Amino acid sequence: MKYELYYWPTIQGRGEFIRLALEEAGADYVDVARGPEDSGAGVPALMQILDSNAIHRPPFAPPFLKAGDLLIGQTANILLFLGPRHGLAPKDDAGRLWTHQLQLTLADLVQEVHDTHHPIAASLYYEEQRKEARRRAGEFLKSRAPKFLAYFEHVLERNPEGDQHLVGASLTYCDLSLFQVIAGLRYAFPRAAAQYQRDYRRVFGMYDRIARSPRIAAYLASDRRIPFNEEGIFRHYEELDFKP
Amino acid sequence: MKYELYYWPTIQGRGEFIRLALEEAGADYVDVARGPEDSGAGVPALMQILDSNAIHRPPFAPPFLKAGDLLIGQTANILLFLGPRHGLAPKDDAGRLWTHQLQLTLADLVQEVHDTHHPIAASLYYEEQRKEARRRAGEFLKSRAPKFLAYFEHVLERNPEGDQHLVGASLTYCDLSLFQVIAGLRYAFPRAAAQYQRDYRRVFGMYDRIARSPRIAAYLASDRRIPFNEEGIFRHYEELDFKP
Repeated sequence: MKYELYYWPTIQGRGEFIRLALEEAGADYVDVARGPEDSGAGVPALMQILDSNAIHRPPFAPPFLKAGDLLIGQTANILLFLGPRHGLAPKDDAGRLWTHQLQLTLADLVQEVHDTHHPIAASLYYEEQRKEARRRAGEFLKSRAPKFLAYFEHVLERNPEGDQHLVGASLTYCDLSLFQVIAGLRYAFPRAAAQYQRDYRRVFGMYDRIARSPRIAAYLASDRRIPFNEEGIFRHYEELDFKP
Repeated sequence: MKYELYYWPTIQGRGEFIRLALEEAGADYVDVARGPEDSGAGVPALMQILDSNAIHRPPFAPPFLKAGDLLIGQTANILLFLGPRHGLAPKDDAGRLWTHQLQLTLADLVQEVHDTHHPIAASLYYEEQRKEARRRAGEFLKSRAPKFLAYFEHVLERNPEGDQHLVGASLTYCDLSLFQVIAGLRYAFPRAAAQYQRDYRRVFGMYDRIARSPRIAAYLASDRRIPFNEEGIFRHYEELDFKP
């Protein structure tokens, strides 16, 4: 079965968590909104689903994934679906819940990263909330990011099967998502990330290993990987990169 | 099996989504942090788990649920676990994913409600971010809340089994969670909610039905239901209740 991923074509955003899982799985998928409009793909194909009145189980927002008859929305929910199908989640119920719990905690962190540059409203430009963004980013880098990173460091440390993975003894989708979060923090907040790298060695060690792993390294080097930019979740604004 | 719910004892907060599901299920549970400290309950029992170094799969934050040997964190994840066990989610995989997708969308809405009074940092007092809160609440009530409510109205309308429930022909945990969100919006933003009630009749109709249903009505009338207050997610500040 060929998956159809629907996400904004010019940013990594939340879609990137899905792309990384599909790439690591070697899954057959098409990134629909990045395809050509004249063959029925592109953003119009995405908007057609979002604006449709005929879908009984409509998504609220991208990303969403078509898998045969299923249309699945919400990033963590898509990974909950993909994980066990592609060896990226444990087989037992308890392990799946735990993996999903970690993913939801990462989703909370990602939302807080987004709000560092959009503390007032996603519908306003960054320039319209710059002052508030400075306050929020300062608090985020000083207290929130360290709290989350210390938690994931701790989860790695406590994992009875070793500190190479968050769950069990092999790679899961939440390892890939933590990799993406670290990649994003390094891009958006290089000064702060340099400090975090010294404080959370297991987390950054996992980041390094995943970056070098064959399928992810090939993906990162390909043009399927959209570069970070100032339209996505992780944005680099010099004035927000406080030293924590 | 008796469930142990761990959540802050003085607020509804995110714990309330779990309480409502347990109450509707008629499940045997104890709200641990609301119990007496001298018998090993209370907030110290909650903090002991949060601060423990001995737990292999630690929660990041309350709520979390002990179910036998399982310790499950993240609100939506707890409901994912409880739903099928108590007839509050469909039995088929596609139905469970859809129910969970709606729950995650509600979780996004709840986070945005929280940020109306804490747009800069949860660690600061409301009074330290009042000006920013006015801007954020205005945007929320004008564009975000209506977008979410229109979505859930649409999901009810499109449900092939009728507009009485979000999923299928019977009550699920996400119906209960939507009930809680509406209860919260009515408390926090009565002027705005009066307008929404005119615009989203199916959503508010479901709210009314659930409020009158036997188990939920009994729960709401009991002292197990903590009143809304200005420590929780849904807070009433007159100056934030804009007419949308």
